[in-house]
Amino acid sequence: MLIPQPYLLFLGDVTDPLAAKTARGIHVWRPEQCVGEIKLPGCTVSLGLDVLDIATAKERGAKTLVLGTANAGGYLPEHWLDTVKGAIKAGMNVASGLHHRLVDEPELVALAQEFGVELFDLRHMRPKLNVGSGKKRTGKRVLTVGTDCSVGKMYTSLALEAAMRERGMKADFRATGQTGILVAGEGIAIDAVIADFIAGAVEALSPANDADHWDIVEGQGSLFHPSYAGVSMGLIHGAQPHWLVMCHEMGRPHMRHLPHQPMVSLKDCVEANLRAADVTSDNVQLAGFAINTSNYSEEEARAYCAEVSAEFGVPATDPVRFGIADIAALLQERG
Amino acid sequence: MLIPQPYLLFLGDVTDPLAAKTARGIHVWRPEQCVGEIKLPGCTVSLGLDVLDIATAKERGAKTLVLGTANAGGYLPEHWLDTVKGAIKAGMNVASGLHHRLVDEPELVALAQEFGVELFDLRHMRPKLNVGSGKKRTGKRVLTVGTDCSVGKMYTSLALEAAMRERGMKADFRATGQTGILVAGEGIAIDAVIADFIAGAVEALSPANDADHWDIVEGQGSLFHPSYAGVSMGLIHGAQPHWLVMCHEMGRPHMRHLPHQPMVSLKDCVEANLRAADVTSDNVQLAGFAINTSNYSEEEARAYCAEVSAEFGVPATDPVRFGIADIAALLQERG
Repeated sequence: MLIPQPYLLFLGDVTDPLAAKTARGIHVWRPEQCVGEIKLPGCTVSLGLDVLDIATAKERGAKTLVLGTANAGGYLPEHWLDTVKGAIKAGMNVASGLHHRLVDEPELVALAQEFGVELFDLRHMRPKLNVGSGKKRTGKRVLTVGTDCSVGKMYTSLALEAAMRERGMKADFRATGQTGILVAGEGIAIDAVIADFIAGAVEALSPANDADHWDIVEGQGSLFHPSYAGVSMGLIHGAQPHWLVMCHEMGRPHMRHLPHQPMVSLKDCVEANLRAADVTSDNVQLAGFAINTSNYSEEEARAYCAEVSAEFGVPATDPVRFGIADIAALLQERG
Repeated sequence: MLIPQPYLLFLGDVTDPLAAKTARGIHVWRPEQCVGEIKLPGCTVSLGLDVLDIATAKERGAKTLVLGTANAGGYLPEHWLDTVKGAIKAGMNVASGLHHRLVDEPELVALAQEFGVELFDLRHMRPKLNVGSGKKRTGKRVLTVGTDCSVGKMYTSLALEAAMRERGMKADFRATGQTGILVAGEGIAIDAVIADFIAGAVEALSPANDADHWDIVEGQGSLFHPSYAGVSMGLIHGAQPHWLVMCHEMGRPHMRHLPHQPMVSLKDCVEANLRAADVTSDNVQLAGFAINTSNYSEEEARAYCAEVSAEFGVPATDPVRFGIADIAALLQERG
């Protein structure tokens, strides 16, 4: 494990629950790795964890302070530094998903060295990588892909990991984004690697494994998103997936942040992803759809999932509302 | 222009003509920007330019010394440093395509500062970029794409620029690789940008322009190459091309450096590229094929080009052997 767990989750002084998305994700998927939360005066957000000070968190075993909220601009506010320094002095590592790097603060670097702890800047980690080779490797791999950004690829991947483990399958989530990396304790922030190494990074992230072992690789972006399709393409080739799970938001009118960019049809999107995956993976198949239906009634959601399932002949579900057992079952059965 | 021209081309002490590929490319496409070549004892390669020392090159107007050969490993050999320092002291900038960065040599950095010149590390230039938006922009754009790496996309792009200019068209080559950047004096090494910014980099490289102006964007990699398809995909979306020129090597048995990876068919490759381009560019079309036929007789080459042209209904040519006037003519006619 790259980032020592368990964590103390720092919520800063944010008031917008959405700003605590990262902390919330960690707590939802790895509650046993969260010893508590710590916040500054004015913070109105809570994860429902014990509110701890540094000393108590340390006593309870916290190994890393996670800056689990994003502030506007991604900067590290001056008034957060005391908490960060306190954690370092108590012997905790610090992990940050901010654009502003911890290692750009000489004072923090010196302090971390003095107290023998590490600073993890998740957006800036640059492991030594090779370019992808496309060589066939053992083990089974599922990749979550999407019609767009922010359609639940991480949630779906983690839900699938849980559902597969519940069925006794050997399954590991492979993180490609910063929240995922904090959940897993390791991974590669794929959108931060040098363009030439996208596929190679994913090959490194999901190496050859036992024949009955499943990697669930967290997808990013969409082949149809004008900003990020390069990342998605390299991810598909590098993951060498046997199965794809297509993630989608019901009723989304256009590509995220781009009103001029029409939403792709599910059919075109599935076809394009299967064709792209076929370059490195023979016989890749669609395992199902994970659909965010949160803007619709349960009745509408069920009808839509049934319609998609009928059209493509695979399970279609909202993993938040209805779970993802059907897709896990399909993977177990068809291998 | 980012890199001041004209150049003095440094050939080092290489003996392999292929190692001087970058210098040769500059000389072929911008002979008027090459005042001469400079080499070390033992160098057996020549571009046929005047062999000059630093002082004479400076007198003849050289503004930048170009390290135009690659040595094994991409390192900057100790015994090249005297020439580099001599150029700096004479007031020349230095541009390098080596992996090893000039700016990692404190002595060179200090000297460059003292003499008021710049060091250009082409593989490491990181312009400030935005993510791509896919917003429609004015001007016409052609993108060279390929079945594989190293099938002549740069050559084809530059040949097309020359052929279009010959017909009186306003056409500019837009460089995405280091040799191309040295030829053009500017550009973005697209495989060196952070993955999230591939498409955005290409949007910045080929911004909105006059309605009758053509950008010829240099493609990279291939949608079917397991190492680099992410770069190719981002390039296609960012370029927002009206026309594609498909580059291919006749008879190549498998993807470059990957014997396990079969070569894609022209038909599948054209279809996949048009579909990908369609995400940001309505009505994108295929303008023709540029085929490296160097391993075949002229008769075989002509027969193959005729066959491809008949199958797809567009010109197919080997730009080195037969020129690229037909594709330029098609672009002028159909606009």
